[in-house]
Amino acid sequence: MRRVRYCVAMSLDGFIADRNGESDWIVMDPDIDFGEVFQEFDTVLLGRKTYEITRQKSGGPAMPGMQTYVFSHTLRPDDCAGVVVSDDPAATLAELTDKSGKDIWLFGGGSLFSSLLQLGLVATVEVTVMPVLLGGGLPLLPNSAASTKLTLIENTIYEKTGTVALKYSVG
Amino acid sequence: MRRVRYCVAMSLDGFIADRNGESDWIVMDPDIDFGEVFQEFDTVLLGRKTYEITRQKSGGPAMPGMQTYVFSHTLRPDDCAGVVVSDDPAATLAELTDKSGKDIWLFGGGSLFSSLLQLGLVATVEVTVMPVLLGGGLPLLPNSAASTKLTLIENTIYEKTGTVALKYSVG
Repeated sequence: MRRVRYCVAMSLDGFIADRNGESDWIVMDPDIDFGEVFQEFDTVLLGRKTYEITRQKSGGPAMPGMQTYVFSHTLRPDDCAGVVVSDDPAATLAELTDKSGKDIWLFGGGSLFSSLLQLGLVATVEVTVMPVLLGGGLPLLPNSAASTKLTLIENTIYEKTGTVALKYSVG
Repeated sequence: MRRVRYCVAMSLDGFIADRNGESDWIVMDPDIDFGEVFQEFDTVLLGRKTYEITRQKSGGPAMPGMQTYVFSHTLRPDDCAGVVVSDDPAATLAELTDKSGKDIWLFGGGSLFSSLLQLGLVATVEVTVMPVLLGGGLPLLPNSAASTKLTLIENTIYEKTGTVALKYSVG
Protein backbone atom coordinates (compact mmCIF):
# COMPACT_ATOMS: atom_id res chain seq x y z
CA MET A 1 0.00 0.00 0.00
CA ARG A 2 1.36 3.40 -0.99
CA ARG A 3 1.76 5.77 1.88
CA VAL A 4 1.67 9.56 2.12
CA ARG A 5 4.87 10.70 3.85
CA TYR A 6 5.50 14.27 4.98
CA CYS A 7 9.26 14.67 4.48
CA VAL A 8 10.72 18.07 5.31
CA ALA A 9 13.75 19.88 6.64
CA MET A 10 13.00 21.82 9.83
CA SER A 11 14.83 24.20 12.13
CA LEU A 12 15.11 23.04 15.75
CA ASP A 13 12.36 25.50 16.66
CA GLY A 14 9.88 24.02 14.21
CA PHE A 15 10.03 26.07 11.01
CA ILE A 16 10.23 24.69 7.46
CA ALA A 17 11.04 28.05 5.84
CA ASP A 18 12.30 31.30 7.29
CA ARG A 19 10.37 34.57 7.46
CA ASN A 20 11.10 35.28 3.78
CA GLY A 21 10.12 31.80 2.65
CA GLU A 22 13.81 31.04 2.14
CA SER A 23 15.52 27.73 2.77
CA ASP A 24 19.16 28.78 2.54
CA TRP A 25 19.60 27.78 6.21
CA ILE A 26 19.19 24.14 5.19
CA VAL A 27 22.47 22.25 5.39
CA MET A 28 23.02 19.47 2.87
CA ASP A 29 24.86 16.76 4.75
CA PRO A 30 27.20 14.92 2.35
CA ASP A 31 26.16 11.59 3.87
CA ILE A 32 22.48 11.95 2.98
CA ASP A 33 21.84 10.13 -0.28
CA PHE A 34 19.08 12.24 -1.82
CA GLY A 35 19.00 10.05 -4.94
CA GLU A 36 18.15 7.07 -2.79
CA VAL A 37 15.43 9.03 -0.98
CA PHE A 38 13.84 10.18 -4.25
CA GLN A 39 13.78 6.53 -5.42
CA GLU A 40 11.16 5.77 -2.81
CA PHE A 41 8.62 8.13 -4.37
CA ASP A 42 6.90 8.62 -7.72
CA THR A 43 4.35 11.26 -6.72
CA VAL A 44 4.68 14.66 -5.05
CA LEU A 45 1.97 16.71 -3.31
CA LEU A 46 2.22 20.49 -2.95
CA GLY A 47 -0.01 23.11 -1.44
CA ARG A 48 -0.78 26.19 -3.50
CA LYS A 49 1.63 28.51 -1.72
CA THR A 50 4.52 26.07 -1.90
CA TYR A 51 3.82 25.49 -5.58
CA GLU A 52 3.85 29.21 -6.29
CA ILE A 53 7.18 29.61 -4.48
CA THR A 54 8.80 26.82 -6.50
CA ARG A 55 7.30 28.24 -9.71
CA GLN A 56 8.57 31.70 -8.93
CA LYS A 57 12.06 30.44 -8.21
CA SER A 58 12.57 27.85 -10.90
CA GLY A 59 9.55 27.84 -13.20
CA GLY A 60 7.88 25.03 -11.24
CA PRO A 61 8.71 21.95 -9.23
CA ALA A 62 11.30 20.00 -11.17
CA MET A 63 11.34 16.43 -9.92
CA PRO A 64 12.21 14.15 -12.78
CA GLY A 65 10.09 11.05 -13.00
CA MET A 66 7.56 12.26 -10.47
CA GLN A 67 3.93 13.13 -11.00
CA THR A 68 3.15 16.39 -9.21
CA TYR A 69 -0.22 17.28 -7.65
CA VAL A 70 -1.02 20.81 -6.51
CA PHE A 71 -4.00 21.40 -4.21
CA SER A 72 -5.81 24.69 -4.67
CA HIS A 73 -9.27 26.15 -4.98
CA THR A 74 -8.07 29.11 -7.03
CA LEU A 75 -5.40 27.94 -9.50
CA ARG A 76 -6.58 27.23 -13.03
CA PRO A 77 -5.25 23.94 -14.42
CA ASP A 78 -4.53 25.64 -17.77
CA ASP A 79 -2.09 27.99 -16.04
CA CYS A 80 -0.14 25.18 -14.42
CA ALA A 81 1.82 23.23 -16.99
CA GLY A 82 3.26 19.90 -15.96
CA VAL A 83 1.25 19.44 -12.79
CA VAL A 84 -2.21 18.16 -11.88
CA VAL A 85 -4.35 20.71 -10.05
CA SER A 86 -6.95 19.36 -7.62
CA ASP A 87 -9.34 21.11 -5.26
CA ASP A 88 -10.34 17.89 -3.51
CA PRO A 89 -7.47 16.34 -1.54
CA ALA A 90 -9.61 13.52 -0.13
CA ALA A 91 -10.84 12.33 -3.54
CA THR A 92 -7.45 12.71 -5.20
CA LEU A 93 -5.68 10.86 -2.41
CA ALA A 94 -8.25 8.05 -2.47
CA GLU A 95 -7.60 7.67 -6.18
CA LEU A 96 -3.84 7.75 -5.75
CA THR A 97 -3.64 5.26 -2.91
CA ASP A 98 -6.00 2.95 -4.78
CA LYS A 99 -3.49 2.64 -7.60
CA SER A 100 -0.25 0.74 -7.10
CA GLY A 101 2.97 2.71 -7.14
CA LYS A 102 5.74 4.06 -4.98
CA ASP A 103 5.14 6.21 -1.92
CA ILE A 104 3.69 9.70 -2.13
CA TRP A 105 5.83 12.62 -0.99
CA LEU A 106 3.95 15.33 0.83
CA PHE A 107 6.42 18.08 0.04
CA GLY A 108 4.53 20.81 1.88
CA GLY A 109 3.67 23.27 3.02
CA GLY A 110 2.32 23.10 6.50
CA SER A 111 -1.25 24.00 5.55
CA LEU A 112 -1.57 21.06 3.19
CA PHE A 113 -0.02 18.83 5.87
CA SER A 114 -2.58 20.13 8.34
CA SER A 115 -5.49 19.36 5.97
CA LEU A 116 -4.28 15.86 5.12
CA LEU A 117 -3.48 15.11 8.77
CA GLN A 118 -7.04 16.04 9.74
CA LEU A 119 -8.34 13.73 7.04
CA GLY A 120 -6.24 10.91 8.50
CA LEU A 121 -4.30 10.59 5.25
CA VAL A 122 -0.70 11.05 6.44
CA ALA A 123 1.22 7.86 7.31
CA THR A 124 4.55 9.29 8.43
CA VAL A 125 6.18 12.55 9.50
CA GLU A 126 9.86 12.55 8.53
CA VAL A 127 11.68 15.56 9.80
CA THR A 128 15.31 16.43 9.18
CA VAL A 129 16.23 18.73 12.05
CA MET A 130 18.81 21.37 11.11
CA PRO A 131 21.13 22.77 13.81
CA VAL A 132 19.66 26.25 13.73
CA LEU A 133 17.05 28.37 15.51
CA LEU A 134 15.12 30.57 13.08
CA GLY A 135 12.91 32.33 15.62
CA GLY A 136 10.07 32.66 13.10
CA GLY A 137 8.90 31.55 9.66
CA LEU A 138 6.58 28.95 8.23
CA PRO A 139 5.68 26.39 10.90
CA LEU A 140 5.86 22.61 10.42
CA LEU A 141 2.19 22.42 11.34
CA PRO A 142 0.28 25.71 11.31
CA ASN A 143 -2.48 26.32 13.80
CA SER A 144 -4.13 23.01 14.34
CA ALA A 145 -6.87 22.48 16.90
CA ALA A 146 -5.93 18.95 17.92
CA SER A 147 -2.65 17.41 18.99
CA THR A 148 -1.40 14.30 17.21
CA LYS A 149 0.50 11.44 18.77
CA LEU A 150 3.49 10.08 16.90
CA THR A 151 5.61 6.95 17.16
CA LEU A 152 9.34 7.19 16.53
CA ILE A 153 10.25 4.51 13.99
CA GLU A 154 13.72 5.55 12.81
CA ASN A 155 16.47 8.00 13.62
CA THR A 156 19.77 8.90 12.00
CA ILE A 157 22.40 11.33 13.19
CA TYR A 158 24.58 12.92 10.50
CA GLU A 159 27.72 13.77 12.40
CA LYS A 160 29.38 15.99 9.81
CA THR A 161 26.70 18.66 10.00
CA GLY A 162 24.82 17.77 13.19
CA THR A 163 21.70 17.07 11.18
CA VAL A 164 19.18 14.76 12.88
CA ALA A 165 16.71 12.76 10.81
CA LEU A 166 13.65 11.58 12.74
CA LYS A 167 10.99 9.39 11.21
CA TYR A 168 7.64 8.98 12.97
CA SER A 169 4.46 7.13 12.11
CA VAL A 170 1.26 9.01 12.84
CA GLY A 171 -0.66 7.61 15.82
CA MET B 1 33.08 28.04 34.34
CA ARG B 2 29.37 27.75 35.07
CA ARG B 3 27.21 27.69 32.00
CA VAL B 4 23.63 28.73 31.35
CA ARG B 5 21.83 25.78 29.76
CA TYR B 6 18.32 25.97 28.32
CA CYS B 7 16.89 22.52 29.07
CA VAL B 8 13.30 21.91 28.01
CA ALA B 9 10.87 19.34 26.72
CA MET B 10 9.47 20.22 23.32
CA SER B 11 6.87 18.84 20.93
CA LEU B 12 8.20 17.89 17.48
CA ASP B 13 6.63 21.07 16.11
CA GLY B 14 8.54 23.33 18.49
CA PHE B 15 6.26 24.04 21.47
CA ILE B 16 7.25 23.86 25.15
CA ALA B 17 3.68 24.12 26.46
CA ASP B 18 0.34 23.60 24.80
CA ARG B 19 -2.29 26.27 24.15
CA ASN B 20 -3.45 26.13 27.76
CA GLY B 21 0.05 26.29 29.18
CA GLU B 22 -0.22 22.60 30.03
CA SER B 23 2.56 20.04 29.89
CA ASP B 24 0.55 16.83 30.30
CA TRP B 25 1.70 15.79 26.82
CA ILE B 26 5.23 15.34 28.16
CA VAL B 27 6.18 11.68 28.42
CA MET B 28 8.51 10.68 31.25
CA ASP B 29 10.78 8.04 29.80
CA PRO B 30 11.74 5.56 32.55
CA ASP B 31 15.34 5.55 31.29
CA ILE B 32 15.90 9.26 31.86
CA ASP B 33 17.56 9.74 35.23
CA PHE B 34 16.13 13.08 36.32
CA GLY B 35 18.00 12.93 39.64
CA GLU B 36 21.26 12.77 37.74
CA VAL B 37 20.23 15.69 35.53
CA PHE B 38 19.29 17.84 38.54
CA GLN B 39 22.72 17.09 40.07
CA GLU B 40 24.36 19.16 37.36
CA PHE B 41 22.62 22.35 38.48
CA ASP B 42 22.35 24.47 41.60
CA THR B 43 20.57 27.49 40.14
CA VAL B 44 17.35 27.88 38.15
CA LEU B 45 16.24 30.83 36.02
CA LEU B 46 12.58 31.51 35.26
CA GLY B 47 10.77 34.17 33.32
CA ARG B 48 7.85 35.92 34.99
CA LYS B 49 5.13 34.03 33.15
CA THR B 50 6.69 30.64 33.80
CA TYR B 51 7.13 31.53 37.46
CA GLU B 52 3.49 32.53 37.76
CA ILE B 53 2.37 29.26 36.20
CA THR B 54 4.45 27.18 38.62
CA ARG B 55 3.23 29.31 41.51
CA GLN B 56 -0.39 28.91 40.50
CA LYS B 57 -0.05 25.16 40.19
CA SER B 58 2.09 24.27 43.17
CA GLY B 59 2.75 27.39 45.20
CA GLY B 60 6.04 28.07 43.41
CA PRO B 61 8.92 26.26 41.83
CA ALA B 62 9.97 23.49 44.16
CA MET B 63 13.47 22.42 43.30
CA PRO B 64 15.21 21.31 46.45
CA GLY B 65 18.75 22.55 46.83
CA MET B 66 18.46 25.04 44.00
CA GLN B 67 18.54 28.82 44.16
CA THR B 68 15.77 30.21 41.97
CA TYR B 69 15.93 33.53 40.08
CA VAL B 70 12.85 35.08 38.52
CA PHE B 71 13.25 37.86 35.95
CA SER B 72 10.53 40.47 35.91
CA HIS B 73 10.02 44.22 35.80
CA THR B 74 6.70 44.03 37.60
CA LEU B 75 6.90 41.42 40.37
CA ARG B 76 7.62 42.73 43.87
CA PRO B 77 10.31 40.73 45.68
CA ASP B 78 8.22 40.83 48.88
CA ASP B 79 5.45 38.92 47.10
CA CYS B 80 7.76 36.15 45.94
CA ALA B 81 8.90 34.03 48.86
CA GLY B 82 11.82 31.70 48.30
CA VAL B 83 13.05 33.19 45.06
CA VAL B 84 15.27 36.09 44.03
CA VAL B 85 13.53 38.61 41.77
CA SER B 86 15.71 40.51 39.31
CA ASP B 87 14.86 43.02 36.60
CA ASP B 88 18.36 42.97 35.12
CA PRO B 89 19.25 39.61 33.55
CA ALA B 90 22.65 40.80 32.28
CA ALA B 91 23.84 42.02 35.70
CA THR B 92 22.43 39.03 37.57
CA LEU B 93 23.96 36.57 35.14
CA ALA B 94 27.34 38.32 35.30
CA GLU B 95 27.23 37.98 39.06
CA LEU B 96 26.20 34.33 38.92
CA THR B 97 28.77 33.23 36.37
CA ASP B 98 31.46 35.09 38.29
CA LYS B 99 30.86 32.90 41.32
CA SER B 100 31.87 29.25 41.25
CA GLY B 101 29.12 26.65 41.34
CA LYS B 102 27.25 24.13 39.27
CA ASP B 103 25.59 24.94 35.96
CA ILE B 104 22.60 27.25 35.70
CA TRP B 105 19.33 25.84 34.43
CA LEU B 106 17.38 28.16 32.20
CA PHE B 107 14.01 26.56 32.88
CA GLY B 108 12.04 28.89 30.63
CA GLY B 109 9.99 30.21 29.15
CA GLY B 110 10.81 31.12 25.64
CA SER B 111 10.81 34.90 26.21
CA LEU B 112 13.53 34.68 28.83
CA PHE B 113 15.46 32.35 26.53
CA SER B 114 15.10 34.90 23.73
CA SER B 115 16.42 37.73 25.94
CA LEU B 116 19.39 35.76 27.25
CA LEU B 117 20.20 34.43 23.78
CA GLN B 118 20.32 37.98 22.43
CA LEU B 119 22.68 38.92 25.25
CA GLY B 120 24.93 36.01 24.26
CA LEU B 121 24.47 34.41 27.67
CA VAL B 122 23.18 30.95 26.72
CA ALA B 123 25.80 28.20 26.35
CA THR B 124 23.63 25.25 25.33
CA VAL B 125 20.15 24.42 24.07
CA GLU B 126 19.10 20.99 25.32
CA VAL B 127 15.83 19.87 23.89
CA THR B 128 13.98 16.69 24.69
CA VAL B 129 11.75 16.09 21.69
CA MET B 130 8.46 14.39 22.54
CA PRO B 131 6.71 12.25 19.91
CA VAL B 132 3.76 14.57 19.52
CA LEU B 133 2.54 17.43 17.33
CA LEU B 134 0.74 20.10 19.36
CA GLY B 135 -0.17 22.41 16.47
CA GLY B 136 0.08 25.47 18.72
CA GLY B 137 1.18 26.68 22.14
CA LEU B 138 4.20 28.38 23.65
CA PRO B 139 7.10 28.32 21.19
CA LEU B 140 10.65 27.22 22.08
CA LEU B 141 11.88 30.61 20.90
CA PRO B 142 9.22 33.28 20.45
CA ASN B 143 9.56 35.85 17.69
CA SER B 144 13.24 36.51 17.37
CA ALA B 145 14.67 38.73 14.68
CA ALA B 146 17.90 36.84 14.09
CA SER B 147 18.59 33.20 13.46
CA THR B 148 21.09 31.36 15.64
CA LYS B 149 23.46 28.65 14.54
CA LEU B 150 23.84 25.62 16.77
CA THR B 151 26.30 22.75 17.00
CA LEU B 152 25.02 19.30 17.90
CA ILE B 153 27.15 17.98 20.76
CA GLU B 154 25.16 15.03 22.11
CA ASN B 155 22.13 12.96 21.27
CA THR B 156 20.27 10.18 23.03
CA ILE B 157 17.32 8.14 21.81
CA TYR B 158 15.01 6.73 24.48
CA GLU B 159 13.51 3.73 22.74
CA LYS B 160 10.73 2.97 25.21
CA THR B 161 8.88 6.21 24.54
CA GLY B 162 10.48 7.47 21.32
CA THR B 163 11.83 10.50 23.16
CA VAL B 164 14.85 12.14 21.50
CA ALA B 165 17.26 14.23 23.58
CA LEU B 166 19.36 16.68 21.53
CA LYS B 167 22.05 18.81 23.09
CA TYR B 168 23.48 21.76 21.12
CA SER B 169 26.03 24.41 21.91
CA VAL B 170 25.12 27.89 20.73
CA GLY B 171 27.23 29.05 17.79
